[in-house]
Amino acid sequence: MEEDGLEKRDILHLLEKKLEKDFSYDSGSILGSMCTEPLDFAKEIYLKYISKNLGDPGLFPGTAALEDELISEIGDLFGNKNIIGTFTTGGSEANLIAMRIARNLRSDIKNPEVVVPISAHISFDKAADLLNLRLRKVKLLENYEVDLNHLETLINKNTCAIVGVAGTTSLGLIDPIEDIGTIVEGKDIFFHIDAAFGGFVLPFLKRLGYQVPPWDFSINSVDSITADPHKMGLGIIPSGGYFVKDSSILQKTGFEIPYLAGGSFKHFHIVGTRPGASIIAFWVVLKYLGIKGFNEIVSKCMDKTKYLAQRISEIRGVKLAADPVMNVVGITTENGDSICELEKTLRNNNWMLGKFLDFNLIRVVIMPHVKRDHLSNFAIDLEKIVKKLKL
Amino acid sequence: MEEDGLEKRDILHLLEKKLEKDFSYDSGSILGSMCTEPLDFAKEIYLKYISKNLGDPGLFPGTAALEDELISEIGDLFGNKNIIGTFTTGGSEANLIAMRIARNLRSDIKNPEVVVPISAHISFDKAADLLNLRLRKVKLLENYEVDLNHLETLINKNTCAIVGVAGTTSLGLIDPIEDIGTIVEGKDIFFHIDAAFGGFVLPFLKRLGYQVPPWDFSINSVDSITADPHKMGLGIIPSGGYFVKDSSILQKTGFEIPYLAGGSFKHFHIVGTRPGASIIAFWVVLKYLGIKGFNEIVSKCMDKTKYLAQRISEIRGVKLAADPVMNVVGITTENGDSICELEKTLRNNNWMLGKFLDFNLIRVVIMPHVKRDHLSNFAIDLEKIVKKLKL
Repeated sequence: MEEDGLEKRDILHLLEKKLEKDFSYDSGSILGSMCTEPLDFAKEIYLKYISKNLGDPGLFPGTAALEDELISEIGDLFGNKNIIGTFTTGGSEANLIAMRIARNLRSDIKNPEVVVPISAHISFDKAADLLNLRLRKVKLLENYEVDLNHLETLINKNTCAIVGVAGTTSLGLIDPIEDIGTIVEGKDIFFHIDAAFGGFVLPFLKRLGYQVPPWDFSINSVDSITADPHKMGLGIIPSGGYFVKDSSILQKTGFEIPYLAGGSFKHFHIVGTRPGASIIAFWVVLKYLGIKGFNEIVSKCMDKTKYLAQRISEIRGVKLAADPVMNVVGITTENGDSICELEKTLRNNNWMLGKFLDFNLIRVVIMPHVKRDHLSNFAIDLEKIVKKLKL
Repeated sequence: MEEDGLEKRDILHLLEKKLEKDFSYDSGSILGSMCTEPLDFAKEIYLKYISKNLGDPGLFPGTAALEDELISEIGDLFGNKNIIGTFTTGGSEANLIAMRIARNLRSDIKNPEVVVPISAHISFDKAADLLNLRLRKVKLLENYEVDLNHLETLINKNTCAIVGVAGTTSLGLIDPIEDIGTIVEGKDIFFHIDAAFGGFVLPFLKRLGYQVPPWDFSINSVDSITADPHKMGLGIIPSGGYFVKDSSILQKTGFEIPYLAGGSFKHFHIVGTRPGASIIAFWVVLKYLGIKGFNEIVSKCMDKTKYLAQRISEIRGVKLAADPVMNVVGITTENGDSICELEKTLRNNNWMLGKFLDFNLIRVVIMPHVKRDHLSNFAIDLEKIVKKLKL
């Protein structure tokens, strides 16, 4: 650290230079991120309320009440208004909270296990490491769907949780959650849905007339759901959400902090200090966009998704890994060759995509910041590179 | 959710009403929070760079490099420039990361234990729950100092970590970290320092000529440190920091995410998506304030701390629990009566303080938002209430 502070102007100048290598969402390069530019109004609100700390909700009772109102509104969207829940630092914390609840509710199990599809998010591997859980990974069928027969064989007396995914990280697919729900029914197993991506897509897709299989609290055995404002909710980065059907779970498994300035309370969070502003900002996003606004955003993303899917299908050497259900497009080679060289060459050409070696595919997420022009340029480059690599 | 979105103006109006019950830092009521209003310049910068996600650092190489630069600068402040580290969602995540590292480095221990002072932060209890650790809590002496003899008796073959605190949550005290360091020396035990509060106070206190015992990487056996920008660093809420001496620990214990748009990398975080903007904002705070700026802030807080301590000492019925070492003042009853009624009555009078039943004290944290006027009014109210309660 320097002894004397610098002038604002000099700092801004210095910073500009240091950050010039960063990619920006509007450059078109970022085709593989599930984050996007938050809504401008959300940013404005965030700045206004940036110092509110819901880690000490007694100091901010208005914000705390707003969070509850928002939870109930989202519950309504997810098939059950009478849920409880909380906003988190993102989907990883939400999934970790879910896995901790599942484990702690079944403290009778000495070596707890969790059944998760192999396509589930890496945060379940993190949670398993942290919580000393054994993951039992469910294989997928040829078409990337969860193999229900295999899933059933993995359930045993040590199973404390089963995870279903509504919007897989790799392909945006929806697991057969209703079928899994039937398997779970009547068993003392926590059924958690990771809809970090799908949570703020599926309710609107359905309203737009797309075929959306049941995935939420409308299925009786679903216990909790992760859904992230900072993905398709256009909320502040970072903000995740965790939603639970049975309110008694907070009393049973919540942490208690006795010393806070605002008084004692129970909570689920891994973190202590917790920004109120991102919650207020998301409340504002829902109020500002309304269902129609979200419908429009999702509809545009799906149109661009169909456009890209069409373009991919016209390029010889590559093909769609699966028909897109949401605004995620997986691309693989026609002859089954590795996608590694393709991904590397695309990256060298500043196309930043997700890479999934397990499924031999590269992934494009058609977030609101991705424009049709970007996709057109990408398809042109992709065709050239596929030809050059003789795929 | 409504079908149609509302007008901005109507939303702002609605919001204003809903949040009016929140306390604000400048009201003077918030006397017991370790959070404070971030620096205005930090907020401005945060807004500008709000969409950068260091959960995918390959997309934001400039921001990632800035983080490394900042870590090294803080390392310099903490007695070792050649550390590694990372910014977190707060002190709780940083402490959880430290405990996970300690446990995973000693996977040979079947039932791992951690020795922590009873005055350590609640995040260690959370970490113990999550990570299946047994906490062995060290008693304090009459003067709230760690009982080193008791600490030594708690170390055994299952001990994977020892925690020292530089700035306790209840009283802002500094554990005898050099002595603990000597005890740890030569043992295969991870030595972690929680300086969430003290990290951005102590280096400046020392420069101001205060007596500050060694607490950082200048002590050879210290392995890692938690220090939070969002406390006395005047950074964005939330932002924590985790700093580690041995860079090989990242390779040994880091998580790997294979699929990111920006390419693969190893990391310590519990979270996935991670805001780059709070890191950029803290880099800016250090550049803008310089050492002199921080010295001035800490100096002012200490002046107000002495003022409050003096006022407390003049009120019959209550006394200082300990002489303040940092800008934290603990108040207890002179005759040993419970502080519960006192705390409750103060709260009913809108004085929001921390309450520590274990130590029978209420806590004032003299953050930059706390003004001398607030403290004067508080002391007047306190005296009245103490008299009324006949303490």
